[in-house]
Amino acid sequence: MIVLGLDPGLAATGWGIIEATGNRLRHIGHGTVKTRPGEPLADRLAALYAGLESVIAAHGCAAAAIEEVFVNSNPQSTLKLGQARGVVMLAAARGGLPVTEYATRLVKKAIVGVGSADKLQVHAMVERLLPGTKVTGADAADALAVAIAHAHLAATARLQGAA
Amino acid sequence: MIVLGLDPGLAATGWGIIEATGNRLRHIGHGTVKTRPGEPLADRLAALYAGLESVIAAHGCAAAAIEEVFVNSNPQSTLKLGQARGVVMLAAARGGLPVTEYATRLVKKAIVGVGSADKLQVHAMVERLLPGTKVTGADAADALAVAIAHAHLAATARLQGAA
Repeated sequence: MIVLGLDPGLAATGWGIIEATGNRLRHIGHGTVKTRPGEPLADRLAALYAGLESVIAAHGCAAAAIEEVFVNSNPQSTLKLGQARGVVMLAAARGGLPVTEYATRLVKKAIVGVGSADKLQVHAMVERLLPGTKVTGADAADALAVAIAHAHLAATARLQGAA
Repeated sequence: MIVLGLDPGLAATGWGIIEATGNRLRHIGHGTVKTRPGEPLADRLAALYAGLESVIAAHGCAAAAIEEVFVNSNPQSTLKLGQARGVVMLAAARGGLPVTEYATRLVKKAIVGVGSADKLQVHAMVERLLPGTKVTGADAADALAVAIAHAHLAATARLQGAA
């Protein structure tokens, strides 16, 4: 199963793709789609969509995973993030991928073992779980983390379904 | 100039299309794209996008206009609205339409004459400005209002540019 993880943001959206075969994980790719702060919002959203469309088209993903959002106390930031997140989910859905949302704590628990792990711990553990991979960018590391969590939790759900 | 006005929402997005020739306005169409509350978010966003894509493809619009958002005190509502709004702006941008954002007060001022007008006043004035048109739905009325405001303000800007 090839899983696309996504960490949305208007200025920078991280993406990470892994292949999960049973318990084995393989790193396929990761990166960040950036948009220019000075450009009109509609153009930035279109650039974000086009970037993700290329990523999805280039890899044979079967599923997408995305973190549920920590809603900021700043409403303007929440609105901005929401606009990017809507476009990110749309790109996955229109790419034919079922999209699953995961609570941040659940992702951290699946990766590090504790729901309160910090970003650096998650980043380090992602690199350990994908041996030989040097992950560039915090957003891409978060995207790989949610992809790994999805593979892990989906496998657990299958085992429980089979029991 | 054919203008598409948009009033975004996840459950219901209003749209309204007018043609502006000098000072004359003609109603071309309006409606509401609805999504099902029970469905996964990604599917709802895809349905919203597909609905607007059809609307844009069916009419030869030249520009889109959308209200700037009143950010709610409820962060979850703001996030939900943001996600829908991102997809709505993307549909316009990918449909080749330049998207202009207008403050709500500016739209009300352009339509009713006062920035503090209420929704019913805007609705009534939209029907008066588009004679013979009975507008169904508050979201579609708001969408027509922002389309009319855009036509009006763009015409004013052209006049000022020519002076």
